[in-house]
Amino acid sequence: MHHYIKSLSDLENIYRCPGKFKYEEHSVAAHSFKVTQIAQFLGTVEEREGSEINWRRLYEKALNHDYTELFIGDIKTPVKYADPALREHLANVEESMTQSFIYNEIPTEYRAIYTKRLKEGKDETLEGKILSVADKIDLLYESFGEIQKGNPEKLFTEIFQESLTTILLFKSMNSVQYFLKSVLPDLLSGDFTNQEELHTLSKQILSDHEVEQTFAIDI
Amino acid sequence: MHHYIKSLSDLENIYRCPGKFKYEEHSVAAHSFKVTQIAQFLGTVEEREGSEINWRRLYEKALNHDYTELFIGDIKTPVKYADPALREHLANVEESMTQSFIYNEIPTEYRAIYTKRLKEGKDETLEGKILSVADKIDLLYESFGEIQKGNPEKLFTEIFQESLTTILLFKSMNSVQYFLKSVLPDLLSGDFTNQEELHTLSKQILSDHEVEQTFAIDI
Amino acid sequence: MHHYIKSLSDLENIYRCPGKFKYEEHSVAAHSFKVTQIAQFLGTVEEREGSEINWRRLYEKALNHDYTELFIGDIKTPVKYADPALREHLANVEESMTQSFIYNEIPTEYRAIYTKRLKEGKDETLEGKILSVADKIDLLYESFGEIQKGNPEKLFTEIFQESLTTILLFKSMNSVQYFLKSVLPDLLSGDFTNQEELHTLSKQILSDHEVEQTFAIDI
Amino acid sequence: MHHYIKSLSDLENIYRCPGKFKYEEHSVAAHSFKVTQIAQFLGTVEEREGSEINWRRLYEKALNHDYTELFIGDIKTPVKYADPALREHLANVEESMTQSFIYNEIPTEYRAIYTKRLKEGKDETLEGKILSVADKIDLLYESFGEIQKGNPEKLFTEIFQESLTTILLFKSMNSVQYFLKSVLPDLLSGDFTNQEELHTLSKQILSDHEVEQTFAIDI
Amino acid sequence: MHHYIKSLSDLENIYRCPGKFKYEEHSVAAHSFKVTQIAQFLGTVEEREGSEINWRRLYEKALNHDYTELFIGDIKTPVKYADPALREHLANVEESMTQSFIYNEIPTEYRAIYTKRLKEGKDETLEGKILSVADKIDLLYESFGEIQKGNPEKLFTEIFQESLTTILLFKSMNSVQYFLKSVLPDLLSGDFTNQEELHTLSKQILSDHEVEQTFAIDI
Amino acid sequence: MHHYIKSLSDLENIYRCPGKFKYEEHSVAAHSFKVTQIAQFLGTVEEREGSEINWRRLYEKALNHDYTELFIGDIKTPVKYADPALREHLANVEESMTQSFIYNEIPTEYRAIYTKRLKEGKDETLEGKILSVADKIDLLYESFGEIQKGNPEKLFTEIFQESLTTILLFKSMNSVQYFLKSVLPDLLSGDFTNQEELHTLSKQILSDHEVEQTFAIDI
Repeated sequence: MHHYIKSLSDLENIYRCPGKFKYEEHSVAAHSFKVTQIAQFLGTVEEREGSEINWRRLYEKALNHDYTELFIGDIKTPVKYADPALREHLANVEESMTQSFIYNEIPTEYRAIYTKRLKEGKDETLEGKILSVADKIDLLYESFGEIQKGNPEKLFTEIFQESLTTILLFKSMNSVQYFLKSVLPDLLSGDFTNQEELHTLSKQILSDHEVEQTFAIDI
Repeated sequence: MHHYIKSLSDLENIYRCPGKFKYEEHSVAAHSFKVTQIAQFLGTVEEREGSEINWRRLYEKALNHDYTELFIGDIKTPVKYADPALREHLANVEESMTQSFIYNEIPTEYRAIYTKRLKEGKDETLEGKILSVADKIDLLYESFGEIQKGNPEKLFTEIFQESLTTILLFKSMNSVQYFLKSVLPDLLSGDFTNQEELHTLSKQILSDHEVEQTFAIDI
Repeated sequence: MHHYIKSLSDLENIYRCPGKFKYEEHSVAAHSFKVTQIAQFLGTVEEREGSEINWRRLYEKALNHDYTELFIGDIKTPVKYADPALREHLANVEESMTQSFIYNEIPTEYRAIYTKRLKEGKDETLEGKILSVADKIDLLYESFGEIQKGNPEKLFTEIFQESLTTILLFKSMNSVQYFLKSVLPDLLSGDFTNQEELHTLSKQILSDHEVEQTFAIDI
Repeated sequence: MHHYIKSLSDLENIYRCPGKFKYEEHSVAAHSFKVTQIAQFLGTVEEREGSEINWRRLYEKALNHDYTELFIGDIKTPVKYADPALREHLANVEESMTQSFIYNEIPTEYRAIYTKRLKEGKDETLEGKILSVADKIDLLYESFGEIQKGNPEKLFTEIFQESLTTILLFKSMNSVQYFLKSVLPDLLSGDFTNQEELHTLSKQILSDHEVEQTFAIDI
Repeated sequence: MHHYIKSLSDLENIYRCPGKFKYEEHSVAAHSFKVTQIAQFLGTVEEREGSEINWRRLYEKALNHDYTELFIGDIKTPVKYADPALREHLANVEESMTQSFIYNEIPTEYRAIYTKRLKEGKDETLEGKILSVADKIDLLYESFGEIQKGNPEKLFTEIFQESLTTILLFKSMNSVQYFLKSVLPDLLSGDFTNQEELHTLSKQILSDHEVEQTFAIDI
Repeated sequence: MHHYIKSLSDLENIYRCPGKFKYEEHSVAAHSFKVTQIAQFLGTVEEREGSEINWRRLYEKALNHDYTELFIGDIKTPVKYADPALREHLANVEESMTQSFIYNEIPTEYRAIYTKRLKEGKDETLEGKILSVADKIDLLYESFGEIQKGNPEKLFTEIFQESLTTILLFKSMNSVQYFLKSVLPDLLSGDFTNQEELHTLSKQILSDHEVEQTFAIDI
């Protein structure tokens, strides 16, 4: 297990979204921490609203969901989606590299459990869906942080838009409703240069998904 | 909850052990990720050896254990221990700042659960003890990383020594036995300038705790 | 004295105001340089206006005023003020750590002089008051630098406000008068996004202290 | 062409060999500069020894050889080679993304020339072979820089080994002969911790390729 | 030649325009890469318009044009121009240091060619003029990047202005015409805080050089 | 004076010894702080040994001694000494730029005093000699820090050697005697890779200056 523990530190050296100017860099390790924290909160909301949460599964999915970026790095999003065949092929390679890593570095008795842990966690379970949402909420915050500081790259507006759109695919979840009503308005309030554009954009996305606007536009 | 989510990013900007030259910096966010990963592994070992693990509690303790560094920073270890009265006083302040943060930033319905989450997690439960060990294993790896790269500060040898000593306080745990037999030897093998010194030091610490030496000294 | 000289370099590794996103980082070493330079200028103004300056004392106070951050780091301001009891306790710890450092690292014949040098310098002497002002002028410039570059954290506006307010406590000093009339207007002129807000804020603070406005608002 | 010129700056933000601790980072932009400089020198040697160099082709190949990392990043070497099918697939994706970039960003009249420029340049021409060697010489220097500074990752020894081995595939070239006789010995001389290991390794690689040893081992 | 190859890496450590706050740093190595890429494009335009390009000379000039900053660093522009006598003197020193470097580090048989390569390349040939323009286009992009991100230093507006003015000295060249008509408008379009000021400034410079405005002002 | 205060922050962005790989960077601002601290100590020794110190002059000299690097940067040492004519010429330019800065940025009534402050401070007074020694002691510590961490550049050994040699030019001073007897031995003790080489070198330099060896060689 020594190499597994040591590899956690490599995840501190892999930065998200390489090749674009950013005011703040985020490592895969820090992103994983934040996603697990956000998933913990979303699970708390779901539980309060009456759903049963498998907490072990939720934490496990969130904590390990990007570990395999160790093998293929944070391959740039456009590449990932450029070509459905590539996407599938990359998934295969990731899987085969993961298997090979497990075979070489994980002791026999723990292989089964790590095989499960290092699998894609965004499945149809409630915990899988919470992970999908938590991953995008962190991305929304990362892109918002750049927009708010005045990053002139349009890319970050696109990421903001794509993140919010994906979150809205899960709009029937109680935790997503909570996020839209009680968190998003606070994020969008406050002064920053491009506030008006972001308000309009967010309003449009909510409206496209037939979600009532949750924040005031006082401009 | 917006400020809570936003504050996770502040933990990416708080660096551990400020004021000393280091080859690699580690943020509190990344450290929390690594400790949770290590705790996940130690829990897995304990479970395999027949203990019952409360996984929700274990993940929760590990993930949140350093969140309150947001309020008091990574106050330098020597200060923390310089003065028992200060240590207690700092703990009080941390607690009162945590309460004030919870009161201002966490919605009423979630205050109880976050009060519990942001408490010191290193209690006498099995999960609390796993957290104590996981926290020190990450510190052992961080200090080893500096020693191995040739950091001339004696501080890192002291941290290595203190970490291993603390881990050995829990030597009766199955997961600690596993760590000593199957992980520590891999860590100490391989070539690096100060290997001999570190071998001797580790041997001495094991012997002080009446633990049989688990690694070869082939020098 | 070797450890004292070596420790100066540790002050290059302690960064002010940890845990918040900043466009520019400032080390305690660089801050100390700037404060001493600013104190030198304020002393020059006072001397010109007829006051007698003890230059040795002034330089000594400014140069050494943050050396003890070596022991307790730049503990976050909110903590420092959260709790008057903590504040006093921290001051005690700082003092006892300083004494211990002096005892261990400073040769007997120089202990008395370094005990004096590492003491809190902001006393009621003219030189102590100049230090208080110089420390806040540097903080004003640091926070202004962030505001001007578009840092969205409200914290920097609060620091700007708190710094200017503290400077105005010393408004009867000739050097503060000079600063308000001949330096502050130049700082606030020039284009930047939040200029209007900062003008209004500064105007309010001056008016609260019954100081006539010293800069034009041409908006 | 605005986006093409702007994209050159993105290459300053893509770092080679992500995810591993390094003492020095190298951007793709800086690497391209160094490879072109090295190719310029190798071409100079070849020309002096009587070969005819197509200089336009040589510079063009070297300068543009990694531009397409803009689209797929510096995908980690292990991935690239893990799977021959992936390698081919990645090459296809790179090509299709390059075509799409050319179609969107390069004016019609310059598309043909940029299609040629952004193609893989390591072909069987003399200039293509010089590029292959120059690319590996820079990688040899980069890995040597890490080894010499005491980087404990074995990866850099492997990269050193792989680079030298590839260079030796071109041992019949005059410029490679020159490199082995007049540059490599200077690189390997001088004191550094792992010198003995690197000497032995280099000697073995030369001997495997039936190249006479070109440097003294004075240990 | 070992020291020559090694010195390329030193150019990765020399940053342009030292002493001023910048959102993005640019090394001399990366700048040289970008200038060579831009020169390659300008040469392509000239060739298409019927001029004959000596490609070897063009690439050689662009690639090597700042190598001698290795000896004298990026001496700050104001110094360079402060004093015509200094400028000449610095040029002499640079030349004598270059000669000494060539004598010590370049083998006899390659000295003549490197003497030529390390000479100032901005002469009256077409390739020399392309280099002059390419160097300023990269500087224009670097300063624009700072202005667009909200850098409050007036220096970057001055550099933008000076770069555009120098480019316009070569307005009779086809490649400069192309740049003004097809690249500059794209650079100036898009939203950013100081857009209006930069439009007005650029318009003024074009008008001063009797060049028709090439971009829309839609403010 | 606004521009003067603002310019102090530019000194935080000018790094010493540009263009060489270093484990730790040192800004001119931080260097000035350290030199003033060291001068403060050397002055304390001199005073104790019976000399009279003009403390105002000493602090003033040390604090301001590198301010003019704002105008010409940290021009690389080899350039500075390459050519006596250049050295003189650079000194002239520095002086004329300083005069121009004073004329433009310093109010009339303070020009005389700042003209004196921004002058070269290393004169034949006791305070001037202390500054010469303090400047070299900091350089000795900076180069030692690199050597101790394993920096393979020979440059740092040369700087160490040059610094110690210059310090020994002042060997008749009490503070230099103190440094040699009570500080240097502590610096040279402790384990580090190149300790033997540095001991031998230091011994040689002391012996060349007919200074008795002050540290043990226990190798």
